[in-house]
Amino acid sequence: MNNSGNYKYLGRINSPQELKKLDESELDILCAEIRSKLIETVSENGGHLASNLGTVELTVALHRSFSAPDDTIVWDVGHQAYTHKLLTGRYESFDTLRQEGGISGFVRPDESVYDSFYEGHAGTSVSQAAGVAAVNRIKGNSNYAVAVIGDGSFGNGMVYEAMNVAGSGKDRLIIILNDNEMSIDENVGSMAKQLARIRAKPEYYRFKANTEKALNRIPLIGRYLSAFLFKIKSNLKSIIYKSSYFEDMGFRYIGPIDGHDIPALTGAMDSAKMVNGPVLLHINTIKGKGYDFAENSPEIYHGVSHFDIEKGAGNGGGDNYSSHFCKALSEFAAKDKRICAVTAAMSIGTGLQEFFKEFPERSFDVGIAEEHAVTFCSGLAKSGMIPVFAVYSTFMQRCVDQLIHDGALQRQKIIIAVDRAGFVGDDGETHQGLLDIPLTQCIPGAVIYSPSTYDGLSRCLYRALYKDEGLVVIRYPRGSQPDDSGFSPNGEDYDILGDEDADTALVTFGKLFFEADRARQILSAAGIKLKIVKLLRIKPVNPEVYALFSDAKRVFFFEEGEMTGGIGEKFGLALYESGFKGKYRHIGVPDEFVSHAGVDRLLEKYGLDAKSMAEMIENE
Amino acid sequence: MNNSGNYKYLGRINSPQELKKLDESELDILCAEIRSKLIETVSENGGHLASNLGTVELTVALHRSFSAPDDTIVWDVGHQAYTHKLLTGRYESFDTLRQEGGISGFVRPDESVYDSFYEGHAGTSVSQAAGVAAVNRIKGNSNYAVAVIGDGSFGNGMVYEAMNVAGSGKDRLIIILNDNEMSIDENVGSMAKQLARIRAKPEYYRFKANTEKALNRIPLIGRYLSAFLFKIKSNLKSIIYKSSYFEDMGFRYIGPIDGHDIPALTGAMDSAKMVNGPVLLHINTIKGKGYDFAENSPEIYHGVSHFDIEKGAGNGGGDNYSSHFCKALSEFAAKDKRICAVTAAMSIGTGLQEFFKEFPERSFDVGIAEEHAVTFCSGLAKSGMIPVFAVYSTFMQRCVDQLIHDGALQRQKIIIAVDRAGFVGDDGETHQGLLDIPLTQCIPGAVIYSPSTYDGLSRCLYRALYKDEGLVVIRYPRGSQPDDSGFSPNGEDYDILGDEDADTALVTFGKLFFEADRARQILSAAGIKLKIVKLLRIKPVNPEVYALFSDAKRVFFFEEGEMTGGIGEKFGLALYESGFKGKYRHIGVPDEFVSHAGVDRLLEKYGLDAKSMAEMIENE
Repeated sequence: MNNSGNYKYLGRINSPQELKKLDESELDILCAEIRSKLIETVSENGGHLASNLGTVELTVALHRSFSAPDDTIVWDVGHQAYTHKLLTGRYESFDTLRQEGGISGFVRPDESVYDSFYEGHAGTSVSQAAGVAAVNRIKGNSNYAVAVIGDGSFGNGMVYEAMNVAGSGKDRLIIILNDNEMSIDENVGSMAKQLARIRAKPEYYRFKANTEKALNRIPLIGRYLSAFLFKIKSNLKSIIYKSSYFEDMGFRYIGPIDGHDIPALTGAMDSAKMVNGPVLLHINTIKGKGYDFAENSPEIYHGVSHFDIEKGAGNGGGDNYSSHFCKALSEFAAKDKRICAVTAAMSIGTGLQEFFKEFPERSFDVGIAEEHAVTFCSGLAKSGMIPVFAVYSTFMQRCVDQLIHDGALQRQKIIIAVDRAGFVGDDGETHQGLLDIPLTQCIPGAVIYSPSTYDGLSRCLYRALYKDEGLVVIRYPRGSQPDDSGFSPNGEDYDILGDEDADTALVTFGKLFFEADRARQILSAAGIKLKIVKLLRIKPVNPEVYALFSDAKRVFFFEEGEMTGGIGEKFGLALYESGFKGKYRHIGVPDEFVSHAGVDRLLEKYGLDAKSMAEMIENE
Repeated sequence: MNNSGNYKYLGRINSPQELKKLDESELDILCAEIRSKLIETVSENGGHLASNLGTVELTVALHRSFSAPDDTIVWDVGHQAYTHKLLTGRYESFDTLRQEGGISGFVRPDESVYDSFYEGHAGTSVSQAAGVAAVNRIKGNSNYAVAVIGDGSFGNGMVYEAMNVAGSGKDRLIIILNDNEMSIDENVGSMAKQLARIRAKPEYYRFKANTEKALNRIPLIGRYLSAFLFKIKSNLKSIIYKSSYFEDMGFRYIGPIDGHDIPALTGAMDSAKMVNGPVLLHINTIKGKGYDFAENSPEIYHGVSHFDIEKGAGNGGGDNYSSHFCKALSEFAAKDKRICAVTAAMSIGTGLQEFFKEFPERSFDVGIAEEHAVTFCSGLAKSGMIPVFAVYSTFMQRCVDQLIHDGALQRQKIIIAVDRAGFVGDDGETHQGLLDIPLTQCIPGAVIYSPSTYDGLSRCLYRALYKDEGLVVIRYPRGSQPDDSGFSPNGEDYDILGDEDADTALVTFGKLFFEADRARQILSAAGIKLKIVKLLRIKPVNPEVYALFSDAKRVFFFEEGEMTGGIGEKFGLALYESGFKGKYRHIGVPDEFVSHAGVDRLLEKYGLDAKSMAEMIENE
């Protein structure tokens, strides 16, 4: 499996121009080399494997049929573009994948001119490519705009919004639907394949255009024929497959094409280029293709950490905030039939899969549709249920208006479990959970908890379920609870520890509490006293808290999130307004996006690890 | 026209139960009475007229066919529910429409048990009704969940997300598509109407089910027949009308039905109730029906102020921030071909219609699709254009992640013109522009301007176009510039006026500046000196500003927006951190939603009008 340094073809391709020079017969070996390199690198560095193994031939075909960067290729989500990276000058640096300062696991324009947009969220590619296509039309050039998007993203409303607009125009937008889960094409029959074969040939379009012209000359078809046609319509629909949907949207449909057959792919792409308007090219690929472990369990190899190539990866389970959240939720749900769980295609990531197994009737996976998820919760709540929507912090950004308008404004209980709040590490700037506080704190009446421990998470869930009203947010980090603190916070709204009479105080919340407690130990060893106030409910902050600092000379507020609109900003002002006369310092992420690096490294970079905390407190 | 106090039928209907007792022959008179009452009230109080005149018969039919509140009726957007209000016990209080403490112009559960959700934004109804339908299924009851939604909302992605999920299930969700702009059905032919007639009859379903069963027994149709069927497919599509789209989505389609024919409507609704799964009932209505002025110019009567019934309403144009924004943008665009304008179905409201006429090639109306609008801008920017997306503050809440992920993160220039920022008045809590600052301020690198004057608006636009980088937000209020200030602010980032050596200072931005200046005059007359600092760029605030208060004893920051995450919060903390030793007060909207009332009244209520400002400064 390990061919390191022995990639005959891959090693000499530095750009799509060189790829185009290869003979078609050499491509199979190239693809095998790419797969080997992908498995080798991801097994070492972690990353997205199954989706990348599925798009090897697709990417080779794309860069042979199209001419990037003149033609704009937009990778939806951007985690399936490893082959694209290997073929666009990043083979040599590919070993640094997802490492600080190295190649990102997602596409990034600052990394290569072949990466058109920073990508990380689903469903954006069609809108972006539509914008590029509009400008190509305005400028009158002959470049192509291509969106490559998975079938999962097709449940996202933005894709529909973009297709709805683009389909009514004539811009030359090509959507490549990378269908890898059979979620769309389960009814594909032989007819569909036959259609695809006809349609994928350029001659077909002349034929179809002529036929349409001829049919349009026939006057309104009589009532009798119409009735007949109507009867066979539903049958027809299954024959013509799902293409009718895309053609209703105004797109010329080509497909489905075998996504591992490079000549078929380039043929279909060349056909798509001849269409004078929007096209949807539908291809079928197999997630994990070429690596048995991944092919058999693509969900495990969607995103993996370092693993042994011969033995395969573990299932990534284990003890973490997500699993504890699900466990607590299931315990409450066993006793209370009103409790429902909702996910937007993240039942595994958010740990909800066990809840889904146990309470299928009260479990709702709405696909990659965060907006609908929240507003659907609003309907559940209206009818007396208690909906709990678990969502990653970064994807929660997708449903802010729904949280405001369909959540808080309705004065009904909806619980938002915000997973992956804080730094997420290697996935980088598109996935950091640094904005959920500013985005939810401003929502009138919203209550927000940020527990530090598994136990705290359960207690917050109980309060959200049975004590609070309206929109309640419980945010918790990625990963596991550190086990190095002897202190078990159990305060209602906050905890105090350390030296109560110290004139230096540290305020924090969430997982950062463990860093703070270690900082306290470091300082204690140096003879410096420190009082720590750990918040549990961060909105509203219990007003008693401000009085805890009446004698303090210095208060340091550490926050794992954007400072603007963060808790520390509001806290600092409230502290001063309460009469505090000392010095207040708010430490968090300044006005910038945070690139990929390990969480520990990011904590250090932003002065949020124990050592940095202790140093700041000692030296300031 | 004025039948006040003489509504024979309307006057005695206090609930849908009473409506059901009326004989079908009496309904025409009832509908005439309703229309008269609508015109009379809206001409007096202002409000949404055209859409309400279009839904009179629809509402009567709804409340005769369904049994609210056991059956849940969800009004998308909620501005077309005046007839619903009249028929559900609010006839007596209807004269207070849109007045403070009176009947809201939108649906509100705290006003009536017949109002299921607070509504004001488009595209939410299907998700909400889907939630209710799911609970009806879980609880095993026989209630219906009905979403009433206009064709304009069908461009919104959330509707698609909801239909995509609901269509794959069997919950009894009924969507009533109120098609009043012919935007969907322009190709309706005689066949479609004939289909509708067949489909709307309950017998049809037994027939269709039997036919489908029979057809499903036929083995795979031969290649020859298939080829024939394929050839006629595109023709078939136009015959079967757009129903194929909805049926592809898994919905049983009924329609189109004449939305002003009550027996046809109740018949179709009764048929929809018999379907054991999701149904889409498509009805055609005429906006403004029954009032010639409104029928001929529905766009003018979408939302109107007080008008003379006999003469009709003016076109609402004139001099305001929106028109000045468009004028300035057009002037720049005439010289710079990179400038594009984008709107989400609001070209009139945002004043862009003149730009659209002048530069059609660089104008994009994407429908009610704020998310796509921003991400489409990202594609335009990528290709070298300068996109300007004009959007109401309240609807900007819809595209927060796009502003983050597809806007700021891309490091490309995108300008967001946030119209209706601040209190909007009579439209109430769903439409207030009080959250755009917290929601955009936290976006890394975003620059935000909040000009006070038309001239300031132009200058901000110039800076956004030619001086700033990345995502730039320019926010401005609804309405016109007050002309009562002799001072013309023209500072780069801020202005100072009043008594420079006063020990009391007032800080503000936007239109509130005019209130502040009047407060200064009031205080001056009382012998109290005041220094005013008016911010233009509110993020980042020019750090020079903080030094202006080094001698001040009291600083008052007035903000027309939610205080949490507002500028005043960050400003106050920065002021204290700069060494300020005085007293700082931040005045704005506390953690609550703001109900409908006139803007002046709201300013007064939240202590933001000149008089309140002066009183606070004098007495504190």
